[in-house]
Amino acid sequence: MSRKVIIIGAVAAGPKAACRLKRLQPDWHILMLDQDSLISYGGCGIPYYVSGDVSDESELRSTSFHMVRDKRFFEDAKGVEVRTRTRALAIDRNQKEVRVQYLDTGQEEDLRYDTLLLATGAQPFELPIPGAQLDGVFTISDLHKAIEIRKRIAAGKVSRAVVIGGGAIGIEMAEALTDLWGIETSLVELEPRLLPGAVDSHFAAMLKQHLEEKDVRVFTGESALSMIDNGSGNVAGVQTNMRSLEADLVIMAVGVRPSSELARAAGLDVTSWGAIKVNQRLQTSDPNIYAAGDCIATTSLVTRRETYAPLGSLANRQGRIAADNIAGHPAVFKGVCNSFIMKAFDRCIGATGISYEAALFEGFDADYALTSPSDRAHFFPGQAVVILQLVFDRKSRRILGLQAFGNMNDSISARVDAAAALIAEGGTIEDFGTLEMAYAPPFAAAIDSINAAAYVAENMCDNRLRRVHLNHFLRWVDNMACEPNWVVVDLRHPKEAEPYIERFGAAHWMSLPYEQMRNIHEQLPTDKNCILVCNAGTRSYEVQVFLDAIGKKNTQVLCGGLNVISRMGVSWYGGKEA
Amino acid sequence: MSRKVIIIGAVAAGPKAACRLKRLQPDWHILMLDQDSLISYGGCGIPYYVSGDVSDESELRSTSFHMVRDKRFFEDAKGVEVRTRTRALAIDRNQKEVRVQYLDTGQEEDLRYDTLLLATGAQPFELPIPGAQLDGVFTISDLHKAIEIRKRIAAGKVSRAVVIGGGAIGIEMAEALTDLWGIETSLVELEPRLLPGAVDSHFAAMLKQHLEEKDVRVFTGESALSMIDNGSGNVAGVQTNMRSLEADLVIMAVGVRPSSELARAAGLDVTSWGAIKVNQRLQTSDPNIYAAGDCIATTSLVTRRETYAPLGSLANRQGRIAADNIAGHPAVFKGVCNSFIMKAFDRCIGATGISYEAALFEGFDADYALTSPSDRAHFFPGQAVVILQLVFDRKSRRILGLQAFGNMNDSISARVDAAAALIAEGGTIEDFGTLEMAYAPPFAAAIDSINAAAYVAENMCDNRLRRVHLNHFLRWVDNMACEPNWVVVDLRHPKEAEPYIERFGAAHWMSLPYEQMRNIHEQLPTDKNCILVCNAGTRSYEVQVFLDAIGKKNTQVLCGGLNVISRMGVSWYGGKEA
Repeated sequence: MSRKVIIIGAVAAGPKAACRLKRLQPDWHILMLDQDSLISYGGCGIPYYVSGDVSDESELRSTSFHMVRDKRFFEDAKGVEVRTRTRALAIDRNQKEVRVQYLDTGQEEDLRYDTLLLATGAQPFELPIPGAQLDGVFTISDLHKAIEIRKRIAAGKVSRAVVIGGGAIGIEMAEALTDLWGIETSLVELEPRLLPGAVDSHFAAMLKQHLEEKDVRVFTGESALSMIDNGSGNVAGVQTNMRSLEADLVIMAVGVRPSSELARAAGLDVTSWGAIKVNQRLQTSDPNIYAAGDCIATTSLVTRRETYAPLGSLANRQGRIAADNIAGHPAVFKGVCNSFIMKAFDRCIGATGISYEAALFEGFDADYALTSPSDRAHFFPGQAVVILQLVFDRKSRRILGLQAFGNMNDSISARVDAAAALIAEGGTIEDFGTLEMAYAPPFAAAIDSINAAAYVAENMCDNRLRRVHLNHFLRWVDNMACEPNWVVVDLRHPKEAEPYIERFGAAHWMSLPYEQMRNIHEQLPTDKNCILVCNAGTRSYEVQVFLDAIGKKNTQVLCGGLNVISRMGVSWYGGKEA
Repeated sequence: MSRKVIIIGAVAAGPKAACRLKRLQPDWHILMLDQDSLISYGGCGIPYYVSGDVSDESELRSTSFHMVRDKRFFEDAKGVEVRTRTRALAIDRNQKEVRVQYLDTGQEEDLRYDTLLLATGAQPFELPIPGAQLDGVFTISDLHKAIEIRKRIAAGKVSRAVVIGGGAIGIEMAEALTDLWGIETSLVELEPRLLPGAVDSHFAAMLKQHLEEKDVRVFTGESALSMIDNGSGNVAGVQTNMRSLEADLVIMAVGVRPSSELARAAGLDVTSWGAIKVNQRLQTSDPNIYAAGDCIATTSLVTRRETYAPLGSLANRQGRIAADNIAGHPAVFKGVCNSFIMKAFDRCIGATGISYEAALFEGFDADYALTSPSDRAHFFPGQAVVILQLVFDRKSRRILGLQAFGNMNDSISARVDAAAALIAEGGTIEDFGTLEMAYAPPFAAAIDSINAAAYVAENMCDNRLRRVHLNHFLRWVDNMACEPNWVVVDLRHPKEAEPYIERFGAAHWMSLPYEQMRNIHEQLPTDKNCILVCNAGTRSYEVQVFLDAIGKKNTQVLCGGLNVISRMGVSWYGGKEA
């Protein structure tokens, strides 16, 4: 029996669901609505279109075989009816009707459905500050805005820009402006660090340091108070609580919120923060209405609690699952690990699961194994250090998350993706220790970075490794009086230790080379807390184990070592990247 | 209570176990023996040393902090006693003694142990053919041979080489010789295809095609019968059953077998093919003797049967687990997915789990989803097609394996590693469909290649996709008389179809563009079996679904499309890589 399905929203979840449905039920009438004229585009590609990496906006709306996914394409190739510039005004659940308005004519109409899919997406927050409506102030809400931004840049109208918001989109936009157009760009973030919520603060610090190396001016812990008017209605800059920043272009990228007005008005269950509630079949509180994509709340596979994961990739997967269920083929979307990855100039940062800070907040007996191994065999040309951290629960030994920062290539994808697969299954430290990462020297170290991090986590859980908290150590270096009893024992080559001994004095920084420790351990101060330091932390751990065995337990390991410090942009770090 | 552990073998599993043991039980006496003088090296790095990518052999024996891992290093830094050039002759299990011979003096001694670890590794097969002992014929059995090979090359003594064996090591060696030294290199493989056992034949064909593009002469299905003597005891070439190949250097890389003579002589259980049997704690049939690394049999996590996985990465992981158990900290090694990855010039090939051919042999209700998606967002600069195949069991819907072939970067690592994590947990097609791959356009497509392949597998299992077997299609193109009833329906742009219509005639190859199909389906032959062809297979599938719905069920999809064909080096493929 033929049925009619109406899909509201035609960017990611909507088109995916529409096409899948039509394939599963070729006789059904599938009608997809969108208030925009441009549909089915890769919104995550906008920064690369603005940068010019993607030469034409139509590429973001094209298939891999270079056909533009417009109304006509969906109708001819897919058999899906599309109405663009059509706004859904209200849902009448009793009559099973959607009231729509055709924006070009103003005309309204009631459309009957058997099943309805809400794929209404998300909309960017707009800061409620004076001047937010000035010409030259943009959110990245749709492709039209992206086209307008690029047009202004290409026309030479932008020499300075301010991006407000230090999340992924803000950072990607800052890169796009700086790297390819040479625009003097400032990035302002209210929180004291970049990527709040996504990674721990030391990872955010490494990212910040790299952005600054690439000439992005980064102002964290700073709030935009107002836009500066040039006197004729155009933006001339941003006034923060700290300074005034000149700009011809301001991009607000302060997050998105689910577009759920329609659902809420129809009496569907929504969360307190406005996301549509669905079950694992992506069904809303009305069994005839499904929802997918950036407008829904989903479940964290780590915390088992409600979370929000507005990402094009998940929207596509959810669109397909909603279609399956609507078509009568049961399928489930269990939830997300909140995996995330991004390019930032020459670096890549990625994560999955939850951060250490989030894990503490969630009440886990959380800890983290911070490491800095090679991203491939250390003898292979082009190998580089990657900073990789596993977050775990000491009690259950479950891995709760992974974060990584390294060179721009796909090696972090490999670790994040493998970790997500295992975290979703409740993987433990031991599972990560034996996780089978494909090995050859051009791709991995014989002991893969992810296995190595699991080993560190295991040693911590089993109380074989006592570490100093990174932040505590950094505070001490800034003000050694705060821990008068501490001394660094530098296990690297004496030449490497030398500049630090000179800088901090032999009372605070001493050299006892790793490989001689079994002979020179008598020189270890017995009345101090010795912070064992090397480049990656592995030598420090070995030395701690040895010292413990001979009864010298006054040591703490700096996990991840100077490889981490060197990337964080701390003022006292003297050398190049360790 | 202090105990004495003897470890026989000091390359990968041995040193890892020794150091871990010393950390877990600092008071114990750990003695590691090896008959070689060079120990603790990355054997997998040998091809990169021979090529010159790794400039000095000592780099293969160094830590990431540039210390050479020699006898002295293990003793000073690790507290592990090492005796090199010391051969274990026999094990007396009752007395718990190992009889050793010091190779430099010829002296013998009995060494008592409390626990023994066999890490005796593997040795390369030597072909029992005339001339195998000639000067210039090498196996890659240890670092000395690698040093000698490179010395000869660097001295200009090698202008032509033959590599016997088309497995990973043979291919890596062929690349090393050709790419960096410009040596005219032939690769001879007995089986009709490269990488036998590791991948299906179409993947092997893609690899072969690329090697040939890079000027390696590849002779598959050809057996080396003898070495040719130049008259003074030096090799001058290889005589195969087909031809005579000139060579100053011959490398035999025809596989390795576990070194288990010692274990067998001591009455320990070994498999019929000579690997030491161990339980999940890596304990042999004698509870006081453990074994790890290339000398043991392990379990396939796919088939649950005995398998062999001689890889440095696994040896390291096993060494650690053996040490844990010896030290009294229970740990298990559950088995392997046989993950594998390699660089071959500009390409990467990788796999995990079992191949389709192996799955059939193992009695699974096996099938495979062959796809050719983009390795990242199709609009992102530098994106490329990757050939990716999932092997699955139709009955249980379990994923049995993944194979991938694409550009040389880490993107295949990401898919292989994530797949291995999930295959080890018994992941199904549906699990792979929702596998959370971290998404941003520089790293992945919104619908990741691995998700897309799972969708194809699902459609096949649910009988929504009827495909033609790739090999059957290729046979037909070579001899169209064998299936007189077949016709290709090319769904691409008519310009793309044109050369094929010209070549094969309109009776065998016709053009019906994808996006017009809903209007032109009347032109589809009703009396033929129509093979639907496009670049990736996705359009073909969509068209099949549409045609099925209107009652036209005489079609089959060429999964993976011409993207696969174009990489396989078939003679009739006209264009560049699709």
